[in-house]
Amino acid sequence: MSDCIFCKIAAGEMPSNKVLETENVLVFHDIAPAAKVHVLVIPKKHIASLNDITEEDASLMGEVLLAAKQAAETLGIADSGYRVINNIGSDGGQVVHHIHFHVLGGEKLGALVGNS
Amino acid sequence: MSDCIFCKIAAGEMPSNKVLETENVLVFHDIAPAAKVHVLVIPKKHIASLNDITEEDASLMGEVLLAAKQAAETLGIADSGYRVINNIGSDGGQVVHHIHFHVLGGEKLGALVGNS
Repeated sequence: MSDCIFCKIAAGEMPSNKVLETENVLVFHDIAPAAKVHVLVIPKKHIASLNDITEEDASLMGEVLLAAKQAAETLGIADSGYRVINNIGSDGGQVVHHIHFHVLGGEKLGALVGNS
Repeated sequence: MSDCIFCKIAAGEMPSNKVLETENVLVFHDIAPAAKVHVLVIPKKHIASLNDITEEDASLMGEVLLAAKQAAETLGIADSGYRVINNIGSDGGQVVHHIHFHVLGGEKLGALVGNS
């Protein structure tokens, strides 16, 4: 997707502050952190949202969650705890339409968010 | 895990309001919903948290995310949007120590939660 910012970051065409990178997955710091630690985990493959994953993407999604775990370890928040969030569509507040999982931690996080 | 409430639900030893069930995954309504739609997606296998997944669990984690997507479709919130949340450990506010993914929707959700 030539106009997708996360595809450009995955391709190295735009800079990012990388935490870890595998063949299929990239983890980098969010430029507007919502917690003391806030990184994004993306598959390099362009998938617009969770609504667009297929059975063929299952192992890739597993790799994404493994990378989230590994990033938490690398960032020193695995033992203290963290939260993984994926937003889908309008009600979810999805901003960039390339699937990404937020990993938030480094502090006590608030209650599970509903509409507040 | 004989003392795990989600293992008991997965085994049918405790009741739940099921949304969908596959060989390895169960989706059921949260008993204390934090949004108009709020279900939990769990692997039937006992895994304490994301910190405990291994490469062998990658495809199972993919199945969990596929089930989250399918549940959103079943519940009629796929198009309007939703949020998938996994809490890990103390800072994440994890309550039940059997990995579970919250799926929230049916209304406009709030901003990405940090410490607020």
